[in-house]
Amino acid sequence: MLELYHAEPLANSMKALLCLKEKGLDFVSHYVDLLKFEQHEPWFVKINPNGQVPVLVHDGKVITESTVIDEYLEDVFPQQPLRPADPFERAKMRIWTKFLDEYALPALSVIGWHLMVRRVAQSIEKNELERLLARVPLKEQQEKWRTVAGESFPQAQLDDCARKLRVTVERVEQSLAEGPWLAGGTYSLADVNAYTLVAALPHRVPDAANSTASPRLMDWLARMQERPAVKAALAMPNRVPEELRTFGNA
Amino acid sequence: MLELYHAEPLANSMKALLCLKEKGLDFVSHYVDLLKFEQHEPWFVKINPNGQVPVLVHDGKVITESTVIDEYLEDVFPQQPLRPADPFERAKMRIWTKFLDEYALPALSVIGWHLMVRRVAQSIEKNELERLLARVPLKEQQEKWRTVAGESFPQAQLDDCARKLRVTVERVEQSLAEGPWLAGGTYSLADVNAYTLVAALPHRVPDAANSTASPRLMDWLARMQERPAVKAALAMPNRVPEELRTFGNA
Repeated sequence: MLELYHAEPLANSMKALLCLKEKGLDFVSHYVDLLKFEQHEPWFVKINPNGQVPVLVHDGKVITESTVIDEYLEDVFPQQPLRPADPFERAKMRIWTKFLDEYALPALSVIGWHLMVRRVAQSIEKNELERLLARVPLKEQQEKWRTVAGESFPQAQLDDCARKLRVTVERVEQSLAEGPWLAGGTYSLADVNAYTLVAALPHRVPDAANSTASPRLMDWLARMQERPAVKAALAMPNRVPEELRTFGNA
Repeated sequence: MLELYHAEPLANSMKALLCLKEKGLDFVSHYVDLLKFEQHEPWFVKINPNGQVPVLVHDGKVITESTVIDEYLEDVFPQQPLRPADPFERAKMRIWTKFLDEYALPALSVIGWHLMVRRVAQSIEKNELERLLARVPLKEQQEKWRTVAGESFPQAQLDDCARKLRVTVERVEQSLAEGPWLAGGTYSLADVNAYTLVAALPHRVPDAANSTASPRLMDWLARMQERPAVKAALAMPNRVPEELRTFGNA
């Protein structure tokens, strides 16, 4: 049996949800409400000591990290492959997933925390917030909460994150000059992992991500949005209140 | 034909060198002298626009990123496999390589820059350094050079990096309670990628990495150092002057 613990069809949760949908795999969905800090409750930390979604449980075996989950699904369920058969394209796919995880997504995350999570943090009474944070397993996550509950990130850091998103737009545009998908000719985990990030770019860096400056990126995004699996994943529960939604599908 | 552009058998270069040696693959070695900034010379940036080693060139195809290079070598040359056959162990391997790349190695790198690269940066005349840095493709790398040429990293950041290395020691120790190798029963790319990092830990955080506090880590390190492939990789050129070597094999 496949079970997925996940939040909204966004960011890392979306990577796993979209992969499952593309492969047509049945799974039991366990929605974890991040705004209620469910990911830090003892029952969840028992499953993933890092207190993060998504988590895949396959016949009782726990797999964390969305990028690793998707490679695992490929290893175990080779139907509807999302890894190119050609090893060079496969390497390009992995260079993309690595770049997304280490460079682009952290930059987008800082801006998302600044715009959205900050409002959540500031709506919680200070002592109550400290009580909630005491349960957060990763020190880095605790610090992000304290940062946005206070003065938030320095403007220089926010600007640098926007710069990184513009670099990302350039890289997407360059890659798509070589083939219809990020790894080349084959739709792959690179595209799956990039989806919510790229969907946010026209909202976050509209000067760089638009049909004049980056036509191939916008065309890729339109093609992604037509995919039945993307539509199916986006139809999963999204309980973020309307007033907290800041871009893309968030 | 396989060609590898690499520096000393350390850090990211070592990941690719050790993988090639473990698999018994012949390759043409191109030594890139980082202390002479060769990785930023036009001929090299033409090969890797990021100006970073290692780079694998396989029959003219360029593959960057050491972790991706090692997965590529597995895909193309399945002999002497370094990926566990069991998909769950394979996922554990990838959680390790991700953790090393995103958490442990960046922490070690900051300390290494502080101890060693700083001395190189400070030995270069300011205008000459700016001339060299103008060629560095990645803004993040330029900033690291300027940081160590100046006041270096704040003590709080250095302390936090040491904390992260202690977290790494704990994780290694926990993993090795479940099997002889990081991913479980099988020697894998997790061990290959971890080698120089773990070899540095007894030097960087001696309070945490020692035979009393972390016996399994020290035993793993001893077993690694006995491997013929590790010895062969360590026998590759190391041109770092004696007085700049600060820990482990650096």
